[in-house]
Amino acid sequence: MTVAAEGRVRRGRGARKAARQTRDITMLPPLKMGLPLTEAMDQGQIERIDAASMAILEEVGVIFRDPIALEDWAQAGAKIEGERVYLDREHVRELIGSIPAEFTYFARNPANNLPFGRDRSIFVPMTGAPYLRDLDDVRRGPTLDDLATFHKLSHMLPALHSSAHHIVEPMDHPVSHRHLRITYSSIKHSDKTFMGMTTSPKNAEDVMDICAILFGDEYLETHPVVTGNCNGNSPLVWDETMLGAMRAFCRRNQPVLCSPFVLGGANTPASVAPTVAQLNAEALSALAYTQVVRRGCPAIYGHYLSTVSMKSGAPMAGTPEISLMNFMIGQMARYYGVPWRSSNTLGGAKTFDAQAGYESATTLMSVLLSGCNYIWHSAGWNEAGMHCSIAKFVVDAEQCAMGYRMAEGIRWDDFDEALAAVRDIGPGGHYLGHPHTLENFQRAFFMPELFDNNSIEQWQAEGSVEITERALNHAKALLADYEEPKLDEAVDEEIRDYIARREREIPAVDALNNEH
Amino acid sequence: MTVAAEGRVRRGRGARKAARQTRDITMLPPLKMGLPLTEAMDQGQIERIDAASMAILEEVGVIFRDPIALEDWAQAGAKIEGERVYLDREHVRELIGSIPAEFTYFARNPANNLPFGRDRSIFVPMTGAPYLRDLDDVRRGPTLDDLATFHKLSHMLPALHSSAHHIVEPMDHPVSHRHLRITYSSIKHSDKTFMGMTTSPKNAEDVMDICAILFGDEYLETHPVVTGNCNGNSPLVWDETMLGAMRAFCRRNQPVLCSPFVLGGANTPASVAPTVAQLNAEALSALAYTQVVRRGCPAIYGHYLSTVSMKSGAPMAGTPEISLMNFMIGQMARYYGVPWRSSNTLGGAKTFDAQAGYESATTLMSVLLSGCNYIWHSAGWNEAGMHCSIAKFVVDAEQCAMGYRMAEGIRWDDFDEALAAVRDIGPGGHYLGHPHTLENFQRAFFMPELFDNNSIEQWQAEGSVEITERALNHAKALLADYEEPKLDEAVDEEIRDYIARREREIPAVDALNNEH
Repeated sequence: MTVAAEGRVRRGRGARKAARQTRDITMLPPLKMGLPLTEAMDQGQIERIDAASMAILEEVGVIFRDPIALEDWAQAGAKIEGERVYLDREHVRELIGSIPAEFTYFARNPANNLPFGRDRSIFVPMTGAPYLRDLDDVRRGPTLDDLATFHKLSHMLPALHSSAHHIVEPMDHPVSHRHLRITYSSIKHSDKTFMGMTTSPKNAEDVMDICAILFGDEYLETHPVVTGNCNGNSPLVWDETMLGAMRAFCRRNQPVLCSPFVLGGANTPASVAPTVAQLNAEALSALAYTQVVRRGCPAIYGHYLSTVSMKSGAPMAGTPEISLMNFMIGQMARYYGVPWRSSNTLGGAKTFDAQAGYESATTLMSVLLSGCNYIWHSAGWNEAGMHCSIAKFVVDAEQCAMGYRMAEGIRWDDFDEALAAVRDIGPGGHYLGHPHTLENFQRAFFMPELFDNNSIEQWQAEGSVEITERALNHAKALLADYEEPKLDEAVDEEIRDYIARREREIPAVDALNNEH
Repeated sequence: MTVAAEGRVRRGRGARKAARQTRDITMLPPLKMGLPLTEAMDQGQIERIDAASMAILEEVGVIFRDPIALEDWAQAGAKIEGERVYLDREHVRELIGSIPAEFTYFARNPANNLPFGRDRSIFVPMTGAPYLRDLDDVRRGPTLDDLATFHKLSHMLPALHSSAHHIVEPMDHPVSHRHLRITYSSIKHSDKTFMGMTTSPKNAEDVMDICAILFGDEYLETHPVVTGNCNGNSPLVWDETMLGAMRAFCRRNQPVLCSPFVLGGANTPASVAPTVAQLNAEALSALAYTQVVRRGCPAIYGHYLSTVSMKSGAPMAGTPEISLMNFMIGQMARYYGVPWRSSNTLGGAKTFDAQAGYESATTLMSVLLSGCNYIWHSAGWNEAGMHCSIAKFVVDAEQCAMGYRMAEGIRWDDFDEALAAVRDIGPGGHYLGHPHTLENFQRAFFMPELFDNNSIEQWQAEGSVEITERALNHAKALLADYEEPKLDEAVDEEIRDYIARREREIPAVDALNNEH
């Protein structure tokens, strides 16, 4: 029994009772793709990308700006010149061959465990925003309380499969301590899986320690419970911070996203297919390194993709080339048999306007049809990631639920029964009162809660409420109904003690570190 | 040489000259699909839909509420009971077998001719809005001048392949005369292909007469120049108005869209696959009838698709089931070898807000990946079709251009050259000054004109201009640069004389007739 289900039984009095009883916050299982994927390349083209990437790894090499990684690679038999590592294609293939094609994410609530990889997709909220647009749509610096708000919403929105980590940056807390409070917030306010901070090797180790308290040290050895992200510095550089954090995760057998950070045209060639060839080489080099650190540990083919406006230098999202690159990267990841991550709902709009809608929906469709496994940044992203919008967060989550429904494909179980209804009704009739309709209407056609489809007269009579206000009202109603999925008290106390100790040990620093 | 190209040479002085010279209004050729289509059904499921539809036609029958059609069907050998026509599946297959799988639309400017069908797609603006949101974003009743504005924009927006017909209803003109003025406006302000009114059989004949003046009577016999639309009354009814208009077009060898009008759950079963089975039966019955009227005349498998909110009865768009139905209908049309039409950018938002963006982009992606040939309602639709928004019109057209770019697929022509750039730059460099970048950046990554990707500081410094205002500024700039693609003066005079004569013959009636 999930905490959510308990919540629906235990609570509730007065006017909101009915609403609560009908609100189902049960998490959707991972999406199992029921549509054919959009495969933009034929087999020969996949092999052309593979060959180009392997040639880059062999002949151009990759910089690992990190003494430990260089030593690891030397021991593994790679050719090294200075910080540049040259990777033989057979070696790369052999290394990535031990990455599991699928595994299960274990959550503290077993009802929220997630079978992951192959034809399954999960939606994870955006992270890393230095600003938020709050419950009054005011853009401001976020606090730990704001972060908690997003973790609560993540907990309650059925299409979101994770509480992620620093959805917004808690600016009211010393930067050197933030990773501790962020991790605690992810765990405390939600019992879904979550992400772990990789802002430094030591921070990543703190996250691992907290996970060990929550799940048990032994448990971690065989159970992926958290996800880290390591960004590359395209072209073809991995740095010490990211590699150290990666090692902290790999050593505890926890998956990292190996994410080249692509600003197409600026740090890659100004062309789609060659950009994918470079990105693929970068991802492969990091994926291979995870297996040098620990054979068989889970790892995820990642990337952050934007294209750059050659007029202004601004990053762009929702563009045709990003859709094409997603289609291609999905094919490459499947070619290598490795789960992969993409980004959803990216965009550069300053407010929650039509631009935000177009960009987000275009990207959602393309990542779904790409067969992406780990669909990160699925809720709240706006202004090129500079702010997370509460209004957009709940609308994006509903859009994910709609995309989920589409991607499940077509139901055929009531086909003959419904055809009998066509015979019953005949030409010129209507179906509204037919038994098949009454039995099926609730599941037949998705009814978005946050989109208004009424007539303009009715909409005006109800106060001409715009989508931002509707969405914020919805978020407020969710938060009013929120019930904390209680942590075991002893575990909770042990984590808090750990955090208190680490906060005594780590000097409180307010300057920005090299967070990604 | 296109009139547009002439225009760029002939005109221009003063400050706007530079802008005009860089604005390319040359129409994009029909999209040739370069991505695999999303096929939601396997062959067995396609055949299951086909068998179900054929059983409906044979055993439930279709009402043709029109004495001439009933007589035509009787002569063709169909079984008839009252107004209900029962169509044998072999008969249906034999009839639709003579519909051309592809043909060319001929425009008065030959540069705007459109090869059509199979793997080609064209974008056609929305039509039928009883209101507009104007250049000041004010919602009001449209005039003939407003209609002209939309026809001018259609002429200038490269991704739009048609000027359509009554994009907005010219409310300042008697309803009984409107079809004449609408047709003239479509022809006068644009030299792309257009649509013909089918509001009554006589109106459709007037449109055919105007086309005959414009192109020549003989020419029409072998050249599709215009498109009509005939809506069905689901379930399984075709009425006299539509059938009479259909005949007017078929007799002159001009294509009609045979469009069942689906409000999923209200006039179809509450389930996706059975809805497609019914819609398919309806479309087939009308497609077959076009071939009874004239063997071999072009015809297009159509539909209008929305799902109905079972809470409020409101039509909904951008929903997952509409995407699924588009995927399926595309497969059915290809199974029968008939070109097909869908609707783009439908939605129920009251303003040009985020809802409008999500709904439009979702639908654009799904109709593109469905392989739709005639992508109607591609610009301007909002408020469930109750208004056409100028702001949304230009943004939608840019989105179509972006979707077009995606659907073209991946370029490989510079692959080796760009890989050489990867070697030149090496790890840690950047590509901004590289010769490959300088040569390719303009075509490499789509740069939307109407989306703002600048930083919030820059956006604020430039006045925090919202997307609606940006789009309206863009529309105003386009209209300021508009140059009429001149009609031959004798032809123009003859059409105007025809219209003047018909307006004397037809009583001016202001009441609403049964327009669709």
